[in-house]
Amino acid sequence: MAESPSAVSGILFVVSAPSGAGKTSLVRALLEVEQGLKLSVSYTTRAPRPGEVDGEHYHFVAGATFEAMIADGAFVEYARVFDNAYGTAEPALREVLQRGDDLVLEIDWQGARQVRERFADAVSIFVAPPSLAALEQRLQGRGQDSDAVIAGRMAKARDELSHLDEYQYLVVNDDFDVALAELRAIVAAERLRRPRQVARYQRALAEMLGPQGVEA
Amino acid sequence: MAESPSAVSGILFVVSAPSGAGKTSLVRALLEVEQGLKLSVSYTTRAPRPGEVDGEHYHFVAGATFEAMIADGAFVEYARVFDNAYGTAEPALREVLQRGDDLVLEIDWQGARQVRERFADAVSIFVAPPSLAALEQRLQGRGQDSDAVIAGRMAKARDELSHLDEYQYLVVNDDFDVALAELRAIVAAERLRRPRQVARYQRALAEMLGPQGVEA
Repeated sequence: MAESPSAVSGILFVVSAPSGAGKTSLVRALLEVEQGLKLSVSYTTRAPRPGEVDGEHYHFVAGATFEAMIADGAFVEYARVFDNAYGTAEPALREVLQRGDDLVLEIDWQGARQVRERFADAVSIFVAPPSLAALEQRLQGRGQDSDAVIAGRMAKARDELSHLDEYQYLVVNDDFDVALAELRAIVAAERLRRPRQVARYQRALAEMLGPQGVEA
Repeated sequence: MAESPSAVSGILFVVSAPSGAGKTSLVRALLEVEQGLKLSVSYTTRAPRPGEVDGEHYHFVAGATFEAMIADGAFVEYARVFDNAYGTAEPALREVLQRGDDLVLEIDWQGARQVRERFADAVSIFVAPPSLAALEQRLQGRGQDSDAVIAGRMAKARDELSHLDEYQYLVVNDDFDVALAELRAIVAAERLRRPRQVARYQRALAEMLGPQGVEA
């Protein structure tokens, strides 16, 4: 990423979890309490649902536009779900990060792998349920789905869980408030890493050490 | 460090700062609020002062014992200050860490370098003052020292500051409570790193993934 040495580039947080672990609620709560942290906005070919705002919930684009973006290599990751396509575009992420905002990307393990290839500094967090029983309960609690559907979700959840060893941090969502506090601690600590802090306090450090004394 | 895969080894935090940055007060406050975090106890050849307890404030040893420990390579770092010697013994640190407690080592940049050689996983934090003026004010505030003494301390502080690029985290102590909260976030986040968490939640994860599914 080309940037001047004084620019404080944002941090890209990648959060994965098996469905039912509570990731989406946790990330929503995290975004409410943490300033300077934004949710990545995906591109999609599906039609907006009532209340969805273009550029806020999704970038809604035509299928042909999406295909052209694929051909351009714009997507860090994309997936086709039934008749629709969803993707995370690299230029959109870089723009937010270069502005100095931090980003959260909610993504599965396959997407996370692709993100790591383009953003080596991405900070990856896995949110796990405290037990299979808790997971099953949450997956059942969602509606009146058949046992077969729930079993399918459980298999998918296990597959996602089996990749937790690819992540830097692990948050176990047993108590929502504890898990939220843990996510906040990770965000806070990553912001305290020396290169970022040196960039943030560059003027004060230059005064203390001389202009040659500090390098981000 | 030989340990069974299920053992959760403690984290070694190394904290350095120029004199006057407020490191000692911050670390003291951190130890009061964080459970499972202990201050490393140094060995010294100096006599106990009134109120000092052997094994708590220092391990008080005879000069000959200290020299024998040096010969044995027991010290991660040691220093001679006037007629006394002070040192951090590796076996004492390992014992605490293997018990699963986390440790804080207050040490200068030279000591920190030596610690990193023996404890590659040590987490290093540098505490900086917000400005030279703040530092000078704090160094002057300590007593009725001469300008020359204060100038000497300032030079030493600048030397310490010039090594902040060897540290993983940088905390700027402008507001004590903010700096303390930042130290707490670093401790919390380091405890949430995946290998530690996998060890901590090994039973739950084995239940979810099967015993072969997780490795610390």
